[in-house]
Amino acid sequence: MLTGKIIEELKEIAGKGNVIADAEKLEAYSHDETDAHEYGHLPDAVVLPSSTEQTAAIVKLANREKIPVTPRGAGSGLSGGAIPEYGGIVVSLEKMNRLIEIDRDNMAAVVEAGMVTNDFALAVQEQGLFFAGYPMSLQTCVIGGNIAENAGGGKAVKYGVTGRYVLGLTLVTPLGDIVELGGKIAKDVTGYDLKSLIIGSEGTLGIVTKAIIRLIGYPTAKSDILCLFKTPEDAIGLVPRILSRGVTPVSIEFMDSLSVQTSCRYLNESLPYENCGAMLLIEFDGSDPAQVEADLIETGRLCESCGAVEVYVAEDRNNIERIWNVRRNIAEAFKVYSPVQSLEDIVVPISKIPSVIPELQRLGTKYKMQIPCYGHAGDGNLHATLVKDPEMAMDEWKKNEKDCLAELYGITKNAGGKISGEHGIGIKRRESFGELVNPAELELMRSLKRAWDPNNIMNPGKIFCLQSNRLYRQTLYNKNMAGDL
Amino acid sequence: MLTGKIIEELKEIAGKGNVIADAEKLEAYSHDETDAHEYGHLPDAVVLPSSTEQTAAIVKLANREKIPVTPRGAGSGLSGGAIPEYGGIVVSLEKMNRLIEIDRDNMAAVVEAGMVTNDFALAVQEQGLFFAGYPMSLQTCVIGGNIAENAGGGKAVKYGVTGRYVLGLTLVTPLGDIVELGGKIAKDVTGYDLKSLIIGSEGTLGIVTKAIIRLIGYPTAKSDILCLFKTPEDAIGLVPRILSRGVTPVSIEFMDSLSVQTSCRYLNESLPYENCGAMLLIEFDGSDPAQVEADLIETGRLCESCGAVEVYVAEDRNNIERIWNVRRNIAEAFKVYSPVQSLEDIVVPISKIPSVIPELQRLGTKYKMQIPCYGHAGDGNLHATLVKDPEMAMDEWKKNEKDCLAELYGITKNAGGKISGEHGIGIKRRESFGELVNPAELELMRSLKRAWDPNNIMNPGKIFCLQSNRLYRQTLYNKNMAGDL
Repeated sequence: MLTGKIIEELKEIAGKGNVIADAEKLEAYSHDETDAHEYGHLPDAVVLPSSTEQTAAIVKLANREKIPVTPRGAGSGLSGGAIPEYGGIVVSLEKMNRLIEIDRDNMAAVVEAGMVTNDFALAVQEQGLFFAGYPMSLQTCVIGGNIAENAGGGKAVKYGVTGRYVLGLTLVTPLGDIVELGGKIAKDVTGYDLKSLIIGSEGTLGIVTKAIIRLIGYPTAKSDILCLFKTPEDAIGLVPRILSRGVTPVSIEFMDSLSVQTSCRYLNESLPYENCGAMLLIEFDGSDPAQVEADLIETGRLCESCGAVEVYVAEDRNNIERIWNVRRNIAEAFKVYSPVQSLEDIVVPISKIPSVIPELQRLGTKYKMQIPCYGHAGDGNLHATLVKDPEMAMDEWKKNEKDCLAELYGITKNAGGKISGEHGIGIKRRESFGELVNPAELELMRSLKRAWDPNNIMNPGKIFCLQSNRLYRQTLYNKNMAGDL
Repeated sequence: MLTGKIIEELKEIAGKGNVIADAEKLEAYSHDETDAHEYGHLPDAVVLPSSTEQTAAIVKLANREKIPVTPRGAGSGLSGGAIPEYGGIVVSLEKMNRLIEIDRDNMAAVVEAGMVTNDFALAVQEQGLFFAGYPMSLQTCVIGGNIAENAGGGKAVKYGVTGRYVLGLTLVTPLGDIVELGGKIAKDVTGYDLKSLIIGSEGTLGIVTKAIIRLIGYPTAKSDILCLFKTPEDAIGLVPRILSRGVTPVSIEFMDSLSVQTSCRYLNESLPYENCGAMLLIEFDGSDPAQVEADLIETGRLCESCGAVEVYVAEDRNNIERIWNVRRNIAEAFKVYSPVQSLEDIVVPISKIPSVIPELQRLGTKYKMQIPCYGHAGDGNLHATLVKDPEMAMDEWKKNEKDCLAELYGITKNAGGKISGEHGIGIKRRESFGELVNPAELELMRSLKRAWDPNNIMNPGKIFCLQSNRLYRQTLYNKNMAGDL
């Protein structure tokens, strides 16, 4: 509940048309790609700043009045990071979507946080340059959101995740100060590396409004192979062997048969090989077509000699695109089959993937659910998905989901892994994170958050809670009531 | 001044032979590679733990008693990071120097913080693996120190700095807790990226006792070219052009004639080309000798067509080694010529190097000193060195040094650069850092430090001061006096 006075102040800062306060329009800002019913919450207002200075003024106001602020990019997140769980103000970066500069000499670009990833990638590609970040949602997700979640995606095996390409960023701190972190420089040990701390902090330590992105030369040669296997174990067992040869593919994507079939059905696509047990889609790129070809052939031979039933070299772009499309649409497809599900994001050491995959099947049987598995096998990041049987009663599902996740996370931890590789903790995994993390490590995070955000206004409750939710809401209420009087 | 009781407690923790308290032996722990006279300070005791648990127990004790703790690796630092400026306990990691594991499947190694970089590099190389960190002091520096300073060095153009290869680390926090950050995983957005925050934090946020290091395949093909130029401007002007072609050399090292000549004299080395105005030493590596050769030839042609007087392909390893040896010994050589000097570490955007180099010459003339310049031109990191004329009076030098540095740092900042690329702030650049940094950014660092280290025991006073030095020493004294009673 924001007072009329505060709404007026927000309008003064960002302009009348850039403050949304009527309930109907707020709904779109109440959820991300997690289950709206389970996690969604309405904000009291949405503000659309068009500059860093406006963003800072909004945060200063919110801090003064102790109003929660939730930064929002495209709302394509998968852990609830952009949901205003405690109401308050959503700061949507959608109007800050400009490409400010492409600096060829320094192989860098300056871009506002609200720019859609694919728009950015295409703009630099026109100049022969390459942005190596590549979340699967690149058509919708924005640069600022990628930074907030340190997004990974399809090219991370070779190119690493978003963070590697962030040279600098402009941050509005929880106190409303503006700081420029990093710069167009290749190395920097001038004080703490706050830039890296911000990357992946899910908007809890400030709002990123702008970034300097490192670009590399566009890899002009590219090719893929598709390898079919009888069983998921056959496919996944090969991944560490492919990686240990010293030639790094851009990606090694794994799909089990359930994932492929469900996505094909959803897309009305028909692949001749959709009934195989599992597949690996492996991509190579580089500047030299002959080298890419050689890498591809060598990898294909390795797959053949190690149990692949068929190896297809995807010779034309059209064919490749069809297969990638199947891969990209798996999550969507399962939502249509059964909207109630939990899309997971575990990441384990490469060598542990072969022992984790059979556990998923065991859990599926035990808890009477489908657990299709697909994901970025090349970097150990598996999107196991717990899918509710449409016939199962909701309360039984709830219990099973909880128990199954606890077991899955335990397996992950024991394998030396973590519960999120690229989707983040947000609201969705907060409780589990709190149970799994070393208490001393959690206290480091909490004390840092308290030090930077003494009023706990910046995306409160994401990753971890500082205080009990009930108490926190109470405080806010009292504060706002007092403000009303 | 530590009480006898505390010394006894330290002996109980680490073993009798691992606590040093007699003045003569303490001297070796009173300085690093900065000027001992200017920055050195004796510790009250040195403890040599042999495990993370012992390290944690020492820190817990120090925190309880409010005694400063200074972590120390090889003492090869160049900004005073390992100097116990306020006395107290030096925790030297020299006994924690074991290679614990090489894990081929996950392309990772687990190593204790006190292991010498070169010993580690050679041990993994025996297995065909490559540690891409390569500080110029690799014969002496240790892994933990590299992490504390996020060391760069000779291969950073292609391979990046130390941080890129740190998958995980074991940290003893300022409260004496043990936390494991990161792991053998390729991506991780499970809570704040504390691992990256620790890298480069100069031992002020805890003691790193162990690290998981990412390895890559050993590049079996390697070759160098040496390009001679009439002037430094000719040489340096070429650097952005070399880099923008999409083929990334391992390194582009720049040396002006003063640097080369001084190092040659020091080494009693004679190079046929030591009288040229400046040189670039460019290295390529890869898995395919033909590709490396092609990259080399193309770059050589570019240099020839853009003003290089001579281009030598260093065909045999022996020749290459001689030139690299000259490069590695520049700093040492200038110390012999004039021990009073200031080795700088500025880093600027690549495109700005050509405009910064002439400024160095101007400053040298203005302040009546030699300012040889050499360094990692390929990543914009220049080790300009202010060298005192042996004839100049000390007080005149002091004033000139101060004014010259202020001007140099101003030029660096205006060029979008930072004052340290790989040596750190430590004590040496603390005052300048405080003047140049955005106050809001400094306050973020300070509040973080206060939150994690409420008694300010962990390497206090490095990078920035939390309180006035006099006051801090006073507090310590009172505390310890009280302890004596």
